Amino acid sequence: MKYISILGSTGSIGTQTLDVVREHRDEFEVCAITGNNNIDLLEKQIIEFTPELCCVMNEQNAIKLKRKLDSSSNFNKKTEILYGIDGLTSAAEYYKSEIIVTAVSGMIGLKPTVAAIKKGKTIALANKETLVTGGDYIMNLAKKYNSLILPVDSEHSAIFQCLMANDNKKINKIILTASGGPFRGKDLDFLKNVTLEDALKHPNWSMGKKITIDSSTLMNKGLEVIEAKFLFDVEPEKIEVVVHPQSIVHSGIEFYDHSTIAQLGLPDMKVPIQFALFYPNRVKNNYKSLSLFDIGKLTFEKADTSIFKCLHLAFESLKIKGTMPAVLNAANETTVDLFLNRKISFLDIGNINENVMLKHSAIKIDSIETILEVEKWAKKIVLEQL
Amino acid sequence: MKYISILGSTGSIGTQTLDVVREHRDEFEVCAITGNNNIDLLEKQIIEFTPELCCVMNEQNAIKLKRKLDSSSNFNKKTEILYGIDGLTSAAEYYKSEIIVTAVSGMIGLKPTVAAIKKGKTIALANKETLVTGGDYIMNLAKKYNSLILPVDSEHSAIFQCLMANDNKKINKIILTASGGPFRGKDLDFLKNVTLEDALKHPNWSMGKKITIDSSTLMNKGLEVIEAKFLFDVEPEKIEVVVHPQSIVHSGIEFYDHSTIAQLGLPDMKVPIQFALFYPNRVKNNYKSLSLFDIGKLTFEKADTSIFKCLHLAFESLKIKGTMPAVLNAANETTVDLFLNRKISFLDIGNINENVMLKHSAIKIDSIETILEVEKWAKKIVLEQL
Repeated sequence: MKYISILGSTGSIGTQTLDVVREHRDEFEVCAITGNNNIDLLEKQIIEFTPELCCVMNEQNAIKLKRKLDSSSNFNKKTEILYGIDGLTSAAEYYKSEIIVTAVSGMIGLKPTVAAIKKGKTIALANKETLVTGGDYIMNLAKKYNSLILPVDSEHSAIFQCLMANDNKKINKIILTASGGPFRGKDLDFLKNVTLEDALKHPNWSMGKKITIDSSTLMNKGLEVIEAKFLFDVEPEKIEVVVHPQSIVHSGIEFYDHSTIAQLGLPDMKVPIQFALFYPNRVKNNYKSLSLFDIGKLTFEKADTSIFKCLHLAFESLKIKGTMPAVLNAANETTVDLFLNRKISFLDIGNINENVMLKHSAIKIDSIETILEVEKWAKKIVLEQL
Repeated sequence: MKYISILGSTGSIGTQTLDVVREHRDEFEVCAITGNNNIDLLEKQIIEFTPELCCVMNEQNAIKLKRKLDSSSNFNKKTEILYGIDGLTSAAEYYKSEIIVTAVSGMIGLKPTVAAIKKGKTIALANKETLVTGGDYIMNLAKKYNSLILPVDSEHSAIFQCLMANDNKKINKIILTASGGPFRGKDLDFLKNVTLEDALKHPNWSMGKKITIDSSTLMNKGLEVIEAKFLFDVEPEKIEVVVHPQSIVHSGIEFYDHSTIAQLGLPDMKVPIQFALFYPNRVKNNYKSLSLFDIGKLTFEKADTSIFKCLHLAFESLKIKGTMPAVLNAANETTVDLFLNRKISFLDIGNINENVMLKHSAIKIDSIETILEVEKWAKKIVLEQL
């Protein structure tokens, strides 16, 4: 029996994690789940998986959820309802849980993930911000507390699986694939006029709004570059972003004997989720089989960092190190939010992110507080640019 | 220091093995080499690598080689010259040698490989016939004598490397890639009229004549299917042949969690050779790096077994088991030889192979003698068909 907490159980990764749990019902006990505003779904999940804890982000939602549950005949009253960042942290460090799936999106994931790491738990990492902003600090903490960090992101899971065929001291390069998003091959003139609706149409994956916009700017790939640098302890020059619109090759490694190992599959997040939950075992499932001749053709292009500035900024932030990736991430959270609210244009996202980076003097990270401070600063600077 | 024997040192795999040795001169001692008619090259190799044994196939060549060496001022008289199958076997089981690269082509490789296995040596297997004809018998022998069999063939090396990312009990399928040869996409009407010269033009790899013809009939892929079945202990239904003209994906595995791991690289046999020689380590080299965006496009097609009959026959021989793969292989050795001597047409190769299989009642293999007997029988039956 594996005991798990799922932070962000109502999101895309969260619900798919519960799908995997449902497929192996005898092997998992869901100890804690957390959500935000989707109270109806949380209620259903509580009734189905009977966790001991459930956390929502604010008190009103907690009250609403309790009322709904109290009036439900299917609720066995086992589940305690918490709220706020303290509740989220309780779910992350819940004594029974062995695996913490960090599927919340945004900086909110940082504190609870650190709490779980300090308890030596296994982190099935789906929250990008943890490593993007915390980098070395987080990895050192994980080493210190003997906490295993397993990537859930399809690209990093691919790289992790490929590394099983050797070790990460023998890498020529990581080949990090990118779908290229909805604006692949477009030029700046085109991008000047794209709308929010255009940017929300991702060709291959169905995901939340923030990550879908990040895919359209290639910031998402930039954040993955930053994560990969820390997860696999490689220099940024060894990370090659390859645009691969079919999203079949999820990523790969060229070892230093010039043998490349890649992980492939149909786009289905349940594969890396299941891999992380059962690691180091592989477990049978009834997902779709990859037929290369049905697919017929895989194509690869260079990622154009002169057009997709956010990807360029990610590499730049890694050169500068310290708090710079956290500043880029915080600036980008704010600019994407502004774009989603139609306050700025598509190209403003990268331009404002860059301006914020230019104004920042990076320092070393020695606590979460440092990260949260520069985050606050970066958000303020973004708003000053408007 | 690794001590190696190279059976077939003047062929394509043999010379590339010596290239790898040359690149890591301090780490290898070449104990024995063997060749056939290319006396000039053998002489050069002896002078450069000073093996303790060198074997050629017939006495005249041995005498010629000795004379050449005696008149050479660079020869240090360390190398003993042997000839015939006994000499080849001596090279294979030479007391000092730890790794035996079996790069001779044809049935001639069988006896010396068995001798080396019985001495518990590591086999860097490049001779297809060993497993195609010996199958389970050879694999059981290797288990009994604790002899490690490492594939050198690019496809099997790929599969072997992918398996390092898990184990072969957890396979949905092996994806065995094939370039498709020079007649990819052609129909039977076209194949009726192809010439020897057409068949000798392989699009991607430069190899010996026999294997080049086998590539054009897809018999080569059929032999690899048979080898893969025994090397990796999988049922033939789990081996999927995928035509991939660019020869970049060298093969892969779909594990039963529907995660596919593939090995990729530019077509360069030195990569799998080096991998086998240094296994389980990966060692730096200066070979060319794979750039997926330089390549741009990878394509995949179904292999048409109704047109390429030899591939179909290979699967059939595995269903029947026992001596049938050996019979197919022996028939094919003879028909390819006849085709190379312009005695039969291209399509005759598959048709005659099939007729010989139809006349054979397979029995279990319990010794090399069984294999050699059915081989003799199959060759006789081929000649009767003319």
